[in-house]
Amino acid sequence: MAQNIYDQADFFEGYSRLGRSVEGLDGAPEWPALRAMLPEVDGARIVDLGCGFGWFCRWARAQGAREVLGLDLSEKMLARARAAGADDAITYERGDLDELSLPKACFDLAYSSLALHYVGDVARLFATLHQALVPGGSFVFSTEHPIYMAPANPGWSVDAAGKKTWPVDRYLIEGPRTTDWLTRGVVKHHRTIGTTLNRLIKAGFTIGHVEEFCPTDAQIAARPELAEELERPMFLLVQARR
Amino acid sequence: MAQNIYDQADFFEGYSRLGRSVEGLDGAPEWPALRAMLPEVDGARIVDLGCGFGWFCRWARAQGAREVLGLDLSEKMLARARAAGADDAITYERGDLDELSLPKACFDLAYSSLALHYVGDVARLFATLHQALVPGGSFVFSTEHPIYMAPANPGWSVDAAGKKTWPVDRYLIEGPRTTDWLTRGVVKHHRTIGTTLNRLIKAGFTIGHVEEFCPTDAQIAARPELAEELERPMFLLVQARR
Repeated sequence: MAQNIYDQADFFEGYSRLGRSVEGLDGAPEWPALRAMLPEVDGARIVDLGCGFGWFCRWARAQGAREVLGLDLSEKMLARARAAGADDAITYERGDLDELSLPKACFDLAYSSLALHYVGDVARLFATLHQALVPGGSFVFSTEHPIYMAPANPGWSVDAAGKKTWPVDRYLIEGPRTTDWLTRGVVKHHRTIGTTLNRLIKAGFTIGHVEEFCPTDAQIAARPELAEELERPMFLLVQARR
Repeated sequence: MAQNIYDQADFFEGYSRLGRSVEGLDGAPEWPALRAMLPEVDGARIVDLGCGFGWFCRWARAQGAREVLGLDLSEKMLARARAAGADDAITYERGDLDELSLPKACFDLAYSSLALHYVGDVARLFATLHQALVPGGSFVFSTEHPIYMAPANPGWSVDAAGKKTWPVDRYLIEGPRTTDWLTRGVVKHHRTIGTTLNRLIKAGFTIGHVEEFCPTDAQIAARPELAEELERPMFLLVQARR
């Protein structure tokens, strides 16, 4: 079973104050790139793995999605998602991505934003998703980039001239990483890009697009603090097809 | 036209002394991983892009390859490859990977070891290779890993306790990188993993396997200096199919 850090009071409070929690999808700089990797959402049956406050579920419905199943481990996030408005075509359910079962060939799209790095056994999850998608169905996700997650002490190093670098170590030593983010002892699972892609391929997926998130010039002009994202990638975005 | 650094006397002398130049394939720690990604070589028609001294061409012939075309920009390397022994089924030719043309559907395997990071326009090269392979044909290559290539000043940072990290910057700023390796002013072309894979996919390839080279325990036991390779990947290995 995955660690349920989002239901810890201090983590939940901190997470609730992030731009992406307050502003929704438009508060996430990687959202335009991820959205560009989606198939047609109008009429689609969608499962959202790690739906959080349900921003994507509601966006998908606004685009005409037929049914949306939002899964999350956090009761607090699900409660807030449900409180955001009733919609008969959206179902929010508690689900642990490490133990997930889904019916066969029921979805056109599996979507996941920044949840897979909490999953220990992605091989099991990818196999579950492959059989849950219809042939031709898509799996589109973002996850923390392994460059971001690998280091024993992840963080910027700043030299005397103010130049930032991101010191990498342990990149090829896969497995859990325990860090302090919003609270102490958050456990994430480090995997190389190769491992993530090979497990998708082994589960039967065809890789469609791989993107190491890079803010656009317009995004940097609007939010100058994003310029440091050019130095090292924070997010990995993948589109795969059954 | 690509930079022909290998024909510079100082570079050629230095390169000739590397383990992989003296011992051939077995002197390259990534070779077992790359070999494991190859399709059946027996009976295959093969093009080797950046064949160097011809070690792979001769290995492939020893495995029963039907025809091998070894291409390299360096006259010095081609001369040494030709001097290693005549074989009517191996042809060594001068070729610039930035300007390459190949006939249609003539090869079962395109292979390249550590040459693609010298290529500015891989989109053009991948399209050329896709049409040169038969349907079902394979493209297997190694290239310098973007973590290795990205930094403005690539190299280890060692703290007071002797702990090594590899400071990354400019990862998302793609383009030429000029470094000093064996000689001054060696130009390589930095691309993210995402860009490399997306250009393969756009050229029509299906991604089969992606590996960020990690030495095995046995390799580290035999060559303890390889342990530092666990901290950051030096090579990216890819298998794709037409």
